[in-house]
Amino acid sequence: MGGVKVRNLAGAADLGRRDRKKHETRAALERAALDLVAEHGLGGVTVEDISQAADVSSRTFFNYFSCKEEAIIGGPPVMAAEIADSMAAAPPGLPVVEVLRLALRAEAGRLQRRREWWLLKMRVFERNPSLLPHLLANGAEVERSVQAAVAARVGDGPGALGYPMLAAAVACTAFRCAVVRWAAETGDAGAPDLRDLLDEAFDALAAGLPDPSSE
Amino acid sequence: MGGVKVRNLAGAADLGRRDRKKHETRAALERAALDLVAEHGLGGVTVEDISQAADVSSRTFFNYFSCKEEAIIGGPPVMAAEIADSMAAAPPGLPVVEVLRLALRAEAGRLQRRREWWLLKMRVFERNPSLLPHLLANGAEVERSVQAAVAARVGDGPGALGYPMLAAAVACTAFRCAVVRWAAETGDAGAPDLRDLLDEAFDALAAGLPDPSSE
Repeated sequence: MGGVKVRNLAGAADLGRRDRKKHETRAALERAALDLVAEHGLGGVTVEDISQAADVSSRTFFNYFSCKEEAIIGGPPVMAAEIADSMAAAPPGLPVVEVLRLALRAEAGRLQRRREWWLLKMRVFERNPSLLPHLLANGAEVERSVQAAVAARVGDGPGALGYPMLAAAVACTAFRCAVVRWAAETGDAGAPDLRDLLDEAFDALAAGLPDPSSE
Repeated sequence: MGGVKVRNLAGAADLGRRDRKKHETRAALERAALDLVAEHGLGGVTVEDISQAADVSSRTFFNYFSCKEEAIIGGPPVMAAEIADSMAAAPPGLPVVEVLRLALRAEAGRLQRRREWWLLKMRVFERNPSLLPHLLANGAEVERSVQAAVAARVGDGPGALGYPMLAAAVACTAFRCAVVRWAAETGDAGAPDLRDLLDEAFDALAAGLPDPSSE
């Protein structure tokens, strides 16, 4: 039994190392893709360029992403899983709108920690409109994932079109609005924390969008 | 004076006739564009085909639309103006969320009266993903118009990124969710009225998105 345990621990360490390595390679490819496209535009960059800059083969590239667009957009499938995990881990009995706030606040923290990277990403999106369909597909995936998590909390099927769809779509919209405000603030010292902007939006949602003058 | 009045009335009648004629031509072009693209796909239809089917010249087509995609998407710039007008006409003192409900309910009524036309439109959008950027641009225009109307009601500038952006984006999202539910209902007799689905969404918004079990 002791031997098995040691082997399992060693196996877990291997797995941890392999996962870390994968994570690093993925991050290096995303970084290289974003930097290159920010400099040369989407049309001026190939998968080979990105792979070379990240010091891996094109074959390795395709282990992580199916196209250069996906490498630039990067995180969203990860984001969908992170948000769903946060929502599943939220205390039972917490109102759905607060569960959504909690999960999206954690996501906002991830963006806040890499503000410059995200602002660069948004500039690249603006300048390369052909990324739009990919961006939308990812946004839709995040929204579906949130919708399924809401449905699970209220005891509906994952594709339920009533409350789960509305709550998920509205929460994702509030997140998008907070990000737009956050990106519009260009002052370095005075730039707001995305989590505060998200909280402000969720305060308004939870209160039923009261007129600002009546607050 | 009497003579001037008569001339003005005659002028108004002329104007009314011209406007009606314009409206009819526009509607005929939209109808032709949608029918042809539903049958042949976007790639299989030209501006000439659409103009011919609507019995006008291509030159006339371009008085109304800048490209075939615009003719298929049709109404949204009209929609943006209609919603803004409804919002401006809402009683002063009415809470913003109810102003939004009122304006979007009127829009929902317009969709409800032409349910089959809108369902065909949505099928054409799904089958021709290259329409997506045009559709998004129109959606963004509607949202900006709603945002400006909210800002005007709460005394903010038209591009205000706080409450006006959030309220406008959330209201448009609620509209979109109601439309998705409406389109998913295929039963002819039992299909819900879009205005009822929109009301349901706005009831939830105005109440702060309470959990359905706690209602």
